[in-house]
Amino acid sequence: MKTDKTSKYVLVLAEKAKEASRKLSLVSGTERGAVLLKMAEAILSKQDFIARENEKDLKEAKKKNYAKALVERLVLNEKRIKEMAESLREISRLSDPLGKVLENYKRPNGLSINKVSVPIGVIGIIYESRPNVTSDCVGLCLKSGNAVILKGGKEALFSNKAIFGVLRDALKGTGIPEDAIQLIPSSDRKGLEEMLKLVDLVDLIVPRGGESLIKFVADNSRIPVVKHYKGICHVYVSDKADVKMAEEICFNSKVQRPGVCNAMETMLVHKNIADSFMPSMIKRFIASGVELRGCALTRKLFKEIKKKATEQDWYEEYLDLILSVKIVDSTDEAIGHINKYSSHHSDSIVTEDKNEAQKFLDSVDSACVYWNASTRFTDGYQFGLGAEVGISTDKLHVRGPMGLEGLTTYKYEIYGTGQVRT
Amino acid sequence: MKTDKTSKYVLVLAEKAKEASRKLSLVSGTERGAVLLKMAEAILSKQDFIARENEKDLKEAKKKNYAKALVERLVLNEKRIKEMAESLREISRLSDPLGKVLENYKRPNGLSINKVSVPIGVIGIIYESRPNVTSDCVGLCLKSGNAVILKGGKEALFSNKAIFGVLRDALKGTGIPEDAIQLIPSSDRKGLEEMLKLVDLVDLIVPRGGESLIKFVADNSRIPVVKHYKGICHVYVSDKADVKMAEEICFNSKVQRPGVCNAMETMLVHKNIADSFMPSMIKRFIASGVELRGCALTRKLFKEIKKKATEQDWYEEYLDLILSVKIVDSTDEAIGHINKYSSHHSDSIVTEDKNEAQKFLDSVDSACVYWNASTRFTDGYQFGLGAEVGISTDKLHVRGPMGLEGLTTYKYEIYGTGQVRT
Repeated sequence: MKTDKTSKYVLVLAEKAKEASRKLSLVSGTERGAVLLKMAEAILSKQDFIARENEKDLKEAKKKNYAKALVERLVLNEKRIKEMAESLREISRLSDPLGKVLENYKRPNGLSINKVSVPIGVIGIIYESRPNVTSDCVGLCLKSGNAVILKGGKEALFSNKAIFGVLRDALKGTGIPEDAIQLIPSSDRKGLEEMLKLVDLVDLIVPRGGESLIKFVADNSRIPVVKHYKGICHVYVSDKADVKMAEEICFNSKVQRPGVCNAMETMLVHKNIADSFMPSMIKRFIASGVELRGCALTRKLFKEIKKKATEQDWYEEYLDLILSVKIVDSTDEAIGHINKYSSHHSDSIVTEDKNEAQKFLDSVDSACVYWNASTRFTDGYQFGLGAEVGISTDKLHVRGPMGLEGLTTYKYEIYGTGQVRT
Repeated sequence: MKTDKTSKYVLVLAEKAKEASRKLSLVSGTERGAVLLKMAEAILSKQDFIARENEKDLKEAKKKNYAKALVERLVLNEKRIKEMAESLREISRLSDPLGKVLENYKRPNGLSINKVSVPIGVIGIIYESRPNVTSDCVGLCLKSGNAVILKGGKEALFSNKAIFGVLRDALKGTGIPEDAIQLIPSSDRKGLEEMLKLVDLVDLIVPRGGESLIKFVADNSRIPVVKHYKGICHVYVSDKADVKMAEEICFNSKVQRPGVCNAMETMLVHKNIADSFMPSMIKRFIASGVELRGCALTRKLFKEIKKKATEQDWYEEYLDLILSVKIVDSTDEAIGHINKYSSHHSDSIVTEDKNEAQKFLDSVDSACVYWNASTRFTDGYQFGLGAEVGISTDKLHVRGPMGLEGLTTYKYEIYGTGQVRT
């Protein structure tokens, strides 16, 4: 699409989404849930069509010699299509986040003030190569009464269009207008750029992808963005830690799944516990292929660690089997290091001392702060939210894992009997 | 100050504020409250000094021939200084918004998840000519555990510096670091522009002033801004309204204080009630000096209204004794008009029909929607919040009147016993 045409196209599509969001906000929770089940059925009954369209993306990917990992994310086999349907069913079963009375009180003049949860309006979701995100996000947005505008990766364009078409067809004859779900079908960033300008039509942007995508979105829009750029997570092993527990928590935080945002990137160790804790820990990390980078004292005390952790390392999200290690003099030093270098995502202390733990929990300025647990628990499902729309390291609207509630806002409905202000 | 110097100055000041905010977040509610009382005492004991500095601003204002209304806002007489102290005492008495357990539950793996209210961090407050905002905002931010950076209007620079100096001195010897309150003393926008760039140091901006100031702030920063540009508020008089009640509500919404954001700018009237409602209403508005601008049908039916309401009028915030009037065919048309032209601030329906009222409350996409009450109640004090930091027409973080709670966020504190993820 050319620029002017794209611009007009995206504007019209967003206007339709806004209009549809007004109607959608009045649809009952029961009906929203039922529509999601209908969509799950549609996905299953059209699985051959979806798989065929997916083949086109895979063919293109091979032609362009995409990386194996990317191609792997693109694939929609029978199992994955079934999972898409199952995911819609799960979202359908979640409790309705709308119409909750958050506060309700009467003023001395008799005005009755009700603060109730309502949809945000129109959500823009930007994602990369996984086509199943298309149906997940449609499910989450409709369940929470929001219209959605989808912009997926160009590698998955055939698959996304196919899934989107099936879901949109499923809206026919329901109380939810078809225009409540929209997809920008452009294969470049032009359509995205246009959407990012529509401050009056799009209420929230949720980018699901890597740091560069998120930065691009946040830098190019005045629409609020739920985001986390990085997960630079720490585990601090206090001198009052249970050594065995500390080893399990550190190992799990780093090794269980190193490529995700809630994995540990830096381990902080109190100097007084280094002797008893480090030798076995180092051995275990090395045996699992973890590259260790140490501060000066770490390298002096433990010769097995040869590589230096530079200033830059403390800011690094490795997303890999690499760990920077620092020995500290005190809990205060650990807290100071974390508040300076952390991405304010997830940080943990291992200690048997309750007062020290509480001080750490209160002082570390991060979305999720743990006492005696792995940082890997920061996740919508692990938190029992039933879904994960995203994770936020911002402080406003949502902080930490974002469930359906993060797709709602509130309004005040005020009931009077003729009150005027004197 | 020159650009480079200003830039460095504001950066250092913000770094100090951030550092201080870490300490402040650990200060108990009792101590925060006590410090505010000490500040109130300091204001009273230094009132001569404050008045003398204020004289310098007033002298400058006369020299520069400022508008009478602006000079009036600048004045700090004995009464106003006493009110500043009293306001600090009132804020001190509010209940502590921090450390509230918002949610608390245990996961099947034994992890105990606590969602607790915490300060946001560093708040930037930008205001215009009223110097008492200086002490109000220091009080609100410290009470909620936040550091604050103030940037007031150049017309009040001597007064603001004086009040700020007195408040900062009062912090000596308390648990709150002096650096928790900062003031940018520049008399141009350079200092403000520098602050707006500090995404990593300033967590939230609250502009308190007119639309052009707010627009400037929002357009020049990626820091979240709590804002409302305008208050284009509507009252819709249904054909099922009590005519007398409708007249009182419309009159109050327009005339009681026309220069504020929660005053009515457009009155919508159902065609079937126009005959019984309009004649007396029009007479009363005209007698109070209200200029009426009508849609075509309004002007046809009520010849006393000669001036035309143009398309532009529906978007206008008059902040004055001017009212646009539209006769509509149905409640749906009224809702459609409001959702199109309203600034999503405050809108009201007058009707005796409960179902119609509920439909209006659910369908109008505004922060505050009223049934049978004046729009003038949208206000932190009227809502019983005990304070008003601002009013938001945005949908995220806060919507509607913002009290102390709007200056807090939350974090997750997670208590484990060695849990790791499998």
